[in-house]
Amino acid sequence: MSTSSTTKPDQLHHALPSAGYSVTVRLKLDNIPGTFAKVVQYLAEAGASLTEVKLKYSDFNFLIRDITINCKSSKHLHEIAKGVGEVEGVTCQDWKDDTFELHRGGKLEIHSRAELRTTDELSRAYTPGVARVCNAIHKDVSQAYEYTIKSNSVAVLTDGSAVLGLGNIGPEAAMPVMEGKAVLFKQFAGVDAYPICLATQDTEEIIKIAKSIAPGFGGINLEDITAPRCFEIENRLREELDIPVFHDDQHGTAAVVLAGVLNSLKIVQKKLSDLKIVVNGFGAGGVACTRILLAAGAKNIIPCDRAGAVYRGRTERMNPVKEELIQKTNPDNEQGSIADVIRGADLFIGVSKPGAIDRAMVKSMASDPIVFALSNPVPEVMPEEIKDVARVIATGRSDYANQVNNVLVFPGIFRGALEARASDITDSMKLASATAVAESIADGDIHERYVIPSVFHGGIADRVASAVVAAAKKDGVARI
Amino acid sequence: MSTSSTTKPDQLHHALPSAGYSVTVRLKLDNIPGTFAKVVQYLAEAGASLTEVKLKYSDFNFLIRDITINCKSSKHLHEIAKGVGEVEGVTCQDWKDDTFELHRGGKLEIHSRAELRTTDELSRAYTPGVARVCNAIHKDVSQAYEYTIKSNSVAVLTDGSAVLGLGNIGPEAAMPVMEGKAVLFKQFAGVDAYPICLATQDTEEIIKIAKSIAPGFGGINLEDITAPRCFEIENRLREELDIPVFHDDQHGTAAVVLAGVLNSLKIVQKKLSDLKIVVNGFGAGGVACTRILLAAGAKNIIPCDRAGAVYRGRTERMNPVKEELIQKTNPDNEQGSIADVIRGADLFIGVSKPGAIDRAMVKSMASDPIVFALSNPVPEVMPEEIKDVARVIATGRSDYANQVNNVLVFPGIFRGALEARASDITDSMKLASATAVAESIADGDIHERYVIPSVFHGGIADRVASAVVAAAKKDGVARI
Repeated sequence: MSTSSTTKPDQLHHALPSAGYSVTVRLKLDNIPGTFAKVVQYLAEAGASLTEVKLKYSDFNFLIRDITINCKSSKHLHEIAKGVGEVEGVTCQDWKDDTFELHRGGKLEIHSRAELRTTDELSRAYTPGVARVCNAIHKDVSQAYEYTIKSNSVAVLTDGSAVLGLGNIGPEAAMPVMEGKAVLFKQFAGVDAYPICLATQDTEEIIKIAKSIAPGFGGINLEDITAPRCFEIENRLREELDIPVFHDDQHGTAAVVLAGVLNSLKIVQKKLSDLKIVVNGFGAGGVACTRILLAAGAKNIIPCDRAGAVYRGRTERMNPVKEELIQKTNPDNEQGSIADVIRGADLFIGVSKPGAIDRAMVKSMASDPIVFALSNPVPEVMPEEIKDVARVIATGRSDYANQVNNVLVFPGIFRGALEARASDITDSMKLASATAVAESIADGDIHERYVIPSVFHGGIADRVASAVVAAAKKDGVARI
Repeated sequence: MSTSSTTKPDQLHHALPSAGYSVTVRLKLDNIPGTFAKVVQYLAEAGASLTEVKLKYSDFNFLIRDITINCKSSKHLHEIAKGVGEVEGVTCQDWKDDTFELHRGGKLEIHSRAELRTTDELSRAYTPGVARVCNAIHKDVSQAYEYTIKSNSVAVLTDGSAVLGLGNIGPEAAMPVMEGKAVLFKQFAGVDAYPICLATQDTEEIIKIAKSIAPGFGGINLEDITAPRCFEIENRLREELDIPVFHDDQHGTAAVVLAGVLNSLKIVQKKLSDLKIVVNGFGAGGVACTRILLAAGAKNIIPCDRAGAVYRGRTERMNPVKEELIQKTNPDNEQGSIADVIRGADLFIGVSKPGAIDRAMVKSMASDPIVFALSNPVPEVMPEEIKDVARVIATGRSDYANQVNNVLVFPGIFRGALEARASDITDSMKLASATAVAESIADGDIHERYVIPSVFHGGIADRVASAVVAAAKKDGVARI
């Protein structure tokens, strides 16, 4: 999920050591009781968290151990790697930043589904046999779904303009994220996704390229493209292509948010149509959250941006997307800062930047405030600061409860769209995916810290896919 | 390899049953001695070739067997599938066209190199950990080779304008060939290739798209694009991109041809510089063969096209590529038809169309004629027609000796280019690949029916890759 934040991850406030900053050190320890205890004591004092220990060698004099340690930041990681070797009786022989090791050489590979051991097999998979398959598709282009990877493939397409919270870092630097996305597509829904990172940020060129590469793909997942260009690109591609196009930063986020909101409302016993909702941030995520909440029945949403509440008649910082959306939102045409309009709100959704709201603002909300602070990796307000005043808190982070993680939705959405051979992903399909995620938690299991399921909760992609297939058929966009 | 032929494969003369036209039938046979013999007899009389038999079920009354049968054409395959069930005591319960079955669902899939079982692993592979890897690449773009699939990935890029011998069948119908290419890249050299089939045949657009998608790829393999557009596209991309770009239909074919010619010359004991060579066909393959033979030391090459010999001063059917090449070829400026200029030639290379030469023309060549008839799947002249007059015969087919198969070269060329992190694939690298292929057959093993190794001859891609790395370093295009 991208946000408008451009904070560098290493400048962040990290509440807890994280596996994203883990280091594995190879230590040579004197074989004297208490040496390892000193290591553990050092780590505890340094605020790091030991996760794995492996014994690699031992004799009467010394032991060699590989120790994996979660740290709080890149700087902290380097301090730990240095400091642990200075513990009495310990030498650090080597250390590796586990995150970089995991990414080394990339996270994807291509496998062949057809083994070619003999000339006969080669004759079928390649020339001359392949010519007959080509001819069959040439005669009837829909046969591409039968005999090529199109039936199961998605292009993960970005221009690198709004990657995570990092901003405009370009196509090469976007690759690790897009490969990660492809890994998630495969692992959670068996979809074959391939990253396409473009060296252009021109809207028309991106549209042209997406249309040109479409023949080999069953769908296009747009990713990490700045607003408002992402709206134009998505709208045009949805109109001009006959394969599903889905901007995950918008609709993936929005569907998970809606799922979490639906379950939160079961706790606070309110109805979506009665809520006063403040959505802060008018990027891809904010616009999509607003739209899906409207589609689900919300009546009173006040969208905010850097200039405060967006209202009819405002002239500053307006654009066509805001003009369109403000016709359906802010019914009382409230004006003022975020601090003004959040007063009395039941639900706050932030897809903006760290520090956008504070404890006092949350205290000014209606009873049982629901706060979705989704700026990533640093939320609009840290959960620790509001845990006693907000009833339900969700963030974009894996180290807090209720993570709004798009992986709950996008694999299943595309699995369903591909299975239905859908020509589009409609609003009903998006709503269906949100409901499927929400219902994956049984009513009896819902509580404040569990309104959104874990990504490792089994079977969510299958549930989402089934719901999406049904909605596609109902909407008439399914082709099988 | 593409040629200018547009013959449909099912209209072809097929000398032998081929695995490209195999059918697997499920037969219920009366359990009476002699029933299966009748099936075998039927197949022999029908000109089909039985390859595999599997017993699926048996009792006192009957047997069920799956029988795989190579046929001669698609029509023949359907006749056999029908006819075999009419043999006395036999019922055909089901049949499948093995080629189509092999291609069903596509031939590729994406695998993840990183397993994500826990939130910690997710934190490293995706957010928040991935952000640090992105930042490292943003700071130093060459780190993309360390931490993304770029280090090992090739785009197999086509516009579907000249696919195999099938012609302009478009991007969807080209997919099975491009997927097949990706399968070969993986199997023979461990390269991760992905097909990109474009819905445009505009030269400038193709160049723009290739440049735009380049950040995520370590190389681009151009495939099945018509001449002369392919020359412009390749030249421009080689100039404007810093990753290797290689048009396989040109240089892959040319390198294998040169390998076969070098070994043929050992048999006929002639020198390349002394040969009179006729190259028929001025498409991608013909131009590249001419160029690599010149680079290897040939002095007398007469290029021919549909209008006969190309010569300086000819006005008909000329274009800039021909104008350029004729300055370095046809030293005696010979004119006339192919039948005229082939007289006294030592070597004929056809990359043209079926029937371009005949037995009488081969008889008019110098002693020990070498004939490379590479139109595919039907050669310029069938080997049976000239086997007693030509000394060495090579074709593009897997069912004859000496198959000019690009798979001998392209996987190793890219393996080497990726290992050297080469910015280009130079002429020396192409020559090195040809020599490596030629030398993979020991001198003592070379004979008329073995001047080009089998694609399953072990270790060829490794030999080619090593030779290519060395040449890249010598040429100064290696970056590690």
